[in-house]
Amino acid sequence: MKKKGLLAVISGFSGAGKGTLIKRMMGAHEGYALSVSATTRDPRPGEEDGREYFFVTKERFEEMIRDDALIEYAGYQENYYGTPKAFVEKRMAEGCDVILEIEIQGARKVREKYPDAVLIFITPPSAAELRKRLAGRGTETAEKVEKRLRRAAEESRYMQDYDYLIVNDDLDEAAEALHRLIDSQHRAMRLHADFAVGLAEEMNREFLKEEI
Amino acid sequence: MKKKGLLAVISGFSGAGKGTLIKRMMGAHEGYALSVSATTRDPRPGEEDGREYFFVTKERFEEMIRDDALIEYAGYQENYYGTPKAFVEKRMAEGCDVILEIEIQGARKVREKYPDAVLIFITPPSAAELRKRLAGRGTETAEKVEKRLRRAAEESRYMQDYDYLIVNDDLDEAAEALHRLIDSQHRAMRLHADFAVGLAEEMNREFLKEEI
Repeated sequence: MKKKGLLAVISGFSGAGKGTLIKRMMGAHEGYALSVSATTRDPRPGEEDGREYFFVTKERFEEMIRDDALIEYAGYQENYYGTPKAFVEKRMAEGCDVILEIEIQGARKVREKYPDAVLIFITPPSAAELRKRLAGRGTETAEKVEKRLRRAAEESRYMQDYDYLIVNDDLDEAAEALHRLIDSQHRAMRLHADFAVGLAEEMNREFLKEEI
Repeated sequence: MKKKGLLAVISGFSGAGKGTLIKRMMGAHEGYALSVSATTRDPRPGEEDGREYFFVTKERFEEMIRDDALIEYAGYQENYYGTPKAFVEKRMAEGCDVILEIEIQGARKVREKYPDAVLIFITPPSAAELRKRLAGRGTETAEKVEKRLRRAAEESRYMQDYDYLIVNDDLDEAAEALHRLIDSQHRAMRLHADFAVGLAEEMNREFLKEEI
């Protein structure tokens, strides 16, 4: 069975540690590619075009929208953010499992366009732990932390739209679980319909002398 | 998240090597229990009650049918064979992942009663390889081999009823793949609906001061 890459959509509350988790997994295992978003916002110091983001003009972004060149996109604080389809499909064709770290609304749009995508939700073990992690960063005002927590609470209502749930309690364990989960999805029957049909036809022809 | 055992239904063509594969996996990893069937046939030399089978009388078996004590059963060559529900449920409650090696008709009945069960189909890589393996055993007449191949061809039409497909090419690799697949299924969202709902309620109460 030829290996084609999968699309793994990963969402989770801000503070769930999904970025760290994905980095840890990709550092430990080969064969993954992280989807790079396109944005109209300006690059910040140290950011590189094609690494953190594809930095494009508003005109170019709107052209991509018109050309259906984005899997999903959204506006946020006067800028566009979106997922370029070509990049994702190229990597999948190369056999990479593409990781798409994205929020809930985007995840739904991805599922519509890629029904074979696997949707994974990352959560800390409890509400108290989420608050502790966000407050513990010490980089944000109490007000901003509260805003993030309120947003997380709103998002929590959609957790069950995802296929799988990973509780990020121990980072190494969660990274390994994430890898094994994505890897296992390659064996989903729906991805091997051609193989299954071909084998059944071969067996019926060879062993039953029948065509099906 | 409390760990409750899963039910993993494993089917495959005669000659696919599923028995060997399951043994290999269970030898290498803990936490599995193999379902033991009940049968009305007589024990063969070396067989032990409760190990190869639960050996029961026809009257007892029919009582189990009436009491809905079997997950599935079938008649085969004047004897009954079936899967006792109590054994499977006890092992799952203990936290074991229960492996049910069963043919296709039985697998369908299991799915009706246990929608959370994961159905896995084991196949050799090709029709030619299946013939080679069956003929290579050298323990059966050519006629019996042909009969098995014809049955396999009939079964092949139902492969796509299964959730996952494992090609048993390299035994060690396939055993590891089987283990990782079953293990990953513990993270399926549908098994954690209570956790997800509880967490969402907690977050909405704590962060939004709302009940959902």
